[in-house]
Amino acid sequence: MDGNRMTGHGVDGTPSVTLLRDRLASGALDALALVDSYIKRIEAREPQVGAWAWFDPEFARAQARTLDAHRRAGRPLGRLHGLPVALKDVIDTQRIPTENGCVQDAGRVPLRDAFVVERLRKEGAILMGKTVTTELAFMQPGKTANPHNLAHTPGGSSQGSAAAVADGMVPLAIGTQTGGSVIRPASFCGVTGYKPTFGAIPRRGVLTQSPSLDTIGVFASDPAGAALLAEVLFGQDDEDNATTLCAAPALHAAATSAPPLPPVFGFIRPPGWEDAEPQLHDAFAELLDALGDQAFELPLPAVFDTAADQRKLINLAEMSYHYYPYWHRGADKLGPITRDAIEQGNAVPARDYLSARDMPKVLNAALDEMFTRCDVILCPSAPGPAPKGLETTGDPVFNGLWTFCGTPCINLPLFTSTEGLPMGVQLVGARHNDARLLRTAQWLTDWAAGASA
Amino acid sequence: MDGNRMTGHGVDGTPSVTLLRDRLASGALDALALVDSYIKRIEAREPQVGAWAWFDPEFARAQARTLDAHRRAGRPLGRLHGLPVALKDVIDTQRIPTENGCVQDAGRVPLRDAFVVERLRKEGAILMGKTVTTELAFMQPGKTANPHNLAHTPGGSSQGSAAAVADGMVPLAIGTQTGGSVIRPASFCGVTGYKPTFGAIPRRGVLTQSPSLDTIGVFASDPAGAALLAEVLFGQDDEDNATTLCAAPALHAAATSAPPLPPVFGFIRPPGWEDAEPQLHDAFAELLDALGDQAFELPLPAVFDTAADQRKLINLAEMSYHYYPYWHRGADKLGPITRDAIEQGNAVPARDYLSARDMPKVLNAALDEMFTRCDVILCPSAPGPAPKGLETTGDPVFNGLWTFCGTPCINLPLFTSTEGLPMGVQLVGARHNDARLLRTAQWLTDWAAGASA
Repeated sequence: MDGNRMTGHGVDGTPSVTLLRDRLASGALDALALVDSYIKRIEAREPQVGAWAWFDPEFARAQARTLDAHRRAGRPLGRLHGLPVALKDVIDTQRIPTENGCVQDAGRVPLRDAFVVERLRKEGAILMGKTVTTELAFMQPGKTANPHNLAHTPGGSSQGSAAAVADGMVPLAIGTQTGGSVIRPASFCGVTGYKPTFGAIPRRGVLTQSPSLDTIGVFASDPAGAALLAEVLFGQDDEDNATTLCAAPALHAAATSAPPLPPVFGFIRPPGWEDAEPQLHDAFAELLDALGDQAFELPLPAVFDTAADQRKLINLAEMSYHYYPYWHRGADKLGPITRDAIEQGNAVPARDYLSARDMPKVLNAALDEMFTRCDVILCPSAPGPAPKGLETTGDPVFNGLWTFCGTPCINLPLFTSTEGLPMGVQLVGARHNDARLLRTAQWLTDWAAGASA
Repeated sequence: MDGNRMTGHGVDGTPSVTLLRDRLASGALDALALVDSYIKRIEAREPQVGAWAWFDPEFARAQARTLDAHRRAGRPLGRLHGLPVALKDVIDTQRIPTENGCVQDAGRVPLRDAFVVERLRKEGAILMGKTVTTELAFMQPGKTANPHNLAHTPGGSSQGSAAAVADGMVPLAIGTQTGGSVIRPASFCGVTGYKPTFGAIPRRGVLTQSPSLDTIGVFASDPAGAALLAEVLFGQDDEDNATTLCAAPALHAAATSAPPLPPVFGFIRPPGWEDAEPQLHDAFAELLDALGDQAFELPLPAVFDTAADQRKLINLAEMSYHYYPYWHRGADKLGPITRDAIEQGNAVPARDYLSARDMPKVLNAALDEMFTRCDVILCPSAPGPAPKGLETTGDPVFNGLWTFCGTPCINLPLFTSTEGLPMGVQLVGARHNDARLLRTAQWLTDWAAGASA
């Protein structure tokens, strides 16, 4: 497609997570054998990629042996039996270091697992290790490089999780997004990154940056894999009042089923579109052309113009409160990007903060209307491929809006740039319509694989 | 009792609300006859007391006639059948003026009833009229005088509601409390005032001053009457995210039942105790002495010392946002107390606001422990009787803490000052233990009536 190659999967040749799950559950594949193959990949590539903050191959193997014995004894298996999962190092793991990408937390070992870690253990997943985060999950980069080109950023803040999945070190990973920390690294690394509806996955035991925005997300090689992992993480926890008690949607079943009708995509040009790279404009023009009647352009009301600034104001204000201990005790030990952001947050008046907090109501009223006209919104994940250099994590310009609105969104690695780097397509669903978003995302992934075949 | 007379009821000789309800339901009493008796009282006393912002006797009579016809036709009756209820003029009433005590809202007529008004109509209550509020439910006084002595303040902000019940103009009234706006006027006017657990009564359609604190409360002549009214107002509404879907407690049944064991009162000296009037100290010493083994002193941890300041900071910050339109368009038309408060709120940093918002968690952890040792906390409602003069609404020093913590509390008019003015006793219950609080409050009311007989 004229300089932009569409690919059905970001990680070529990797078996799908659904297939791995089926083979592990049937006994066709031992968990130990699978883990060993990933350990081998990590040992070969980690010196270049730098995706891991904590990794102990014996800890991974010990879990695999236990799970294999469990299966051989005929015991019931968890929904993630034997699947290795990487955890961003802002997610508390009992008696395993969790250092938040911050020198002030060096040696920190939590007493208790995060909610999501409890779920992983219960469902038979293998905790593969902790992945590199930017400092305190903000924008001061960690050590990770982009597996597609080590001179380019992998994005952030969930940089280790995205890079580990992209490099085939692990089939699944968990990250978090407060601005664009799942979708952007997924786009730059060429994997599926899925940020569920705000409040779907409890955040208990995860570093709090900005509770109005912090959202747990997942990385996988395809939407069905992301659905499989996310499905076991959805829930309610009394310590996270963004969550509510309700039935968990059957995400994986939805993602692996055919849409009842050909899905309709509402294309929007979000604020910042004009400044995106020309090759991104070209790629979208081709995609829209190929989708034909299944896509049309939706105008974005003017109220969205200031949304990015309002989201940032909330992020900075809440960060200035939640990171106050880091700043108060050790501002000089923080990276300059983190420190400047906290100091900007210190200056936000409560009145402006409260005003910004009310804005998603207005934005969502407009989005609700737009979602009556399409299955999902279609827009870019980032303004181009991963920029060169490891000193920034790239521009989250197309991400914050959806974090602010709490709408579920997913990055699909459908394009390749002229430099051979991935460029992502972002689909956005209506709040709490995660299953429909994932089904549509898997449809588009399969359609694109067919279109490029 | 040595200068302080204990009285079982604030309104001597008034039949209890429970008795009125029973007589109205049985047909022994016509709603029209009852309403006419209250109208007569209002017409006689309103020129002195100034409790009403909007009152139309024909509107009250029309409802009474409809309800009487309804009963005579043998139709099922609401739980408040025929009982007149006054509404603080910050509570929206469809096609009835709701002016928020603010000249900028003169002539404002809501299109939709507040949640509590919908409930009142559904349960057969008579909307008796709208009562005077301080300006925007803050501390700039309205026109109401204290019925016990017209030269003294009735307290605020729910001043018309408290005075109307105290003066026998209406058996029941609804108010709101953000600092001390139910308990303080109840104490000054000598009636039962009950502020339920935060989030128990939905605030949809009620003026928003400070959503973290705003709580709807009720006034009656005794705890059982307050329970009867509050019970029909408890609920959940999607437009008030402080509310949750849960079974409404049987408050009236609890308030009219005997405690299984003699209740135990944990007496605390809240911050400000030392500055209260000596006659209040004396009254409490006598009360504790009379309660004997049923009362003991509970120390209040030091963390409570700054709670009042933290509550105020939240109140001012949220008010500066929610009252921004009033201030921006017409600061010069606001009373100086309101204007100064908004301007103080404009200067609150978001970080300090967020810090204050987290404090109730800590306070409630301490209170939860204290409530394992007593049925209710016992403390004063105000530092003395209503001060002379109508230019202030008195000192809310003993009220804000419980609004901040979200604990249910109730004023009981148990003392009379040397000047012949009421002085209240405040009981505080554990969150969501409203039924137990009301049962204990009715027990103490009955016990005090017996002790003083």
